[in-house]
Amino acid sequence: MNCLEARIVKDGVVKEGNVLKVDSFLNHQMDIDLMNEIGKEFYDRFRHKPINKILTIEASGIAIAYAVAQQFHVPLLFAKKSKSINIAGDTYTAEVESFTHKNKNTVVVSKQFLSKDDRVLIVDDFLANGCALQGLISIVDQAGGTVEGIAIAVEKGFQVGGQVIRNLGYHLESLAIVESMNHETGEIVFRRKEKE
Amino acid sequence: MNCLEARIVKDGVVKEGNVLKVDSFLNHQMDIDLMNEIGKEFYDRFRHKPINKILTIEASGIAIAYAVAQQFHVPLLFAKKSKSINIAGDTYTAEVESFTHKNKNTVVVSKQFLSKDDRVLIVDDFLANGCALQGLISIVDQAGGTVEGIAIAVEKGFQVGGQVIRNLGYHLESLAIVESMNHETGEIVFRRKEKE
Repeated sequence: MNCLEARIVKDGVVKEGNVLKVDSFLNHQMDIDLMNEIGKEFYDRFRHKPINKILTIEASGIAIAYAVAQQFHVPLLFAKKSKSINIAGDTYTAEVESFTHKNKNTVVVSKQFLSKDDRVLIVDDFLANGCALQGLISIVDQAGGTVEGIAIAVEKGFQVGGQVIRNLGYHLESLAIVESMNHETGEIVFRRKEKE
Repeated sequence: MNCLEARIVKDGVVKEGNVLKVDSFLNHQMDIDLMNEIGKEFYDRFRHKPINKILTIEASGIAIAYAVAQQFHVPLLFAKKSKSINIAGDTYTAEVESFTHKNKNTVVVSKQFLSKDDRVLIVDDFLANGCALQGLISIVDQAGGTVEGIAIAVEKGFQVGGQVIRNLGYHLESLAIVESMNHETGEIVFRRKEKE
């Protein structure tokens, strides 16, 4: 059990409807020492790649992305979520529809900061159905850059997002993959790698 | 000239209407090594205070707040901006009206993470008219906590925000206070301390 899985077991709260609350240490209040450990773990998993930029999406992704970026000593770029359709022309935009909420969100990055020379590690705190992530991949593609990998703190293994991304051939590393949760007992089952 | 002032002179862009673009290193793409230097500088200025929590507001405040929090080894809490009036009952909320845009924003923090025992350093990237900051102060007050200080990266010294906060008696430290800007020449004048 890694540092994040252990912390989820200790402080995560399972709510009805497959909701996992980790807002005491991950995405509202943040334990910076844990974040830094997560950053080091992702550095170990991706250090062999020629990564020159970290890309995430506001808001809670920024903290984990910071932890990773300071290991790589590369710039951190965050995409903005916008409800507006009228975006200035000097941006890459992706319109992503939420599978769960059925609403549309526009994800925006200034063209100034992403180009064909960029070798990008995408970082986010959560992966469920993967809509935001698909938008970030689309934006790197629009820039002609390369997605070198995707680093996710918590993946909901029982939703489609992770499988879609792996099927597309991306190198996705999720630090904690939740296989199932029980809100009555509070039990959380993590996916184990085959070698374990 | 400190590290942030020097970087603003080098890479900041002055636009018409007293707009200062620092999105290549501070609030869209972020230079993590610069952020870490800023974090250390604020630690030096506030280390004598019994700070046990860093509070900021999404989204771009999170990165600087991270840099500060990892110096203090205390949790980072970020307030969420919400357009919705219907907020769940277990949150502190502040409704702040923008002086510039005349729109209202609701600033929200879960009650779980802020109490009368908290001694808070508020951190943000920008201070102009100070609406968001006033909301954060109100939230710490609602919790019965103490605002030990306020750390701002860039203050627009020609707008009212900083003066209001200082008049109220708060210990406010802004790393770069822009006194004036000229979009035709690109010149930026910083406020100097009296001793300099």
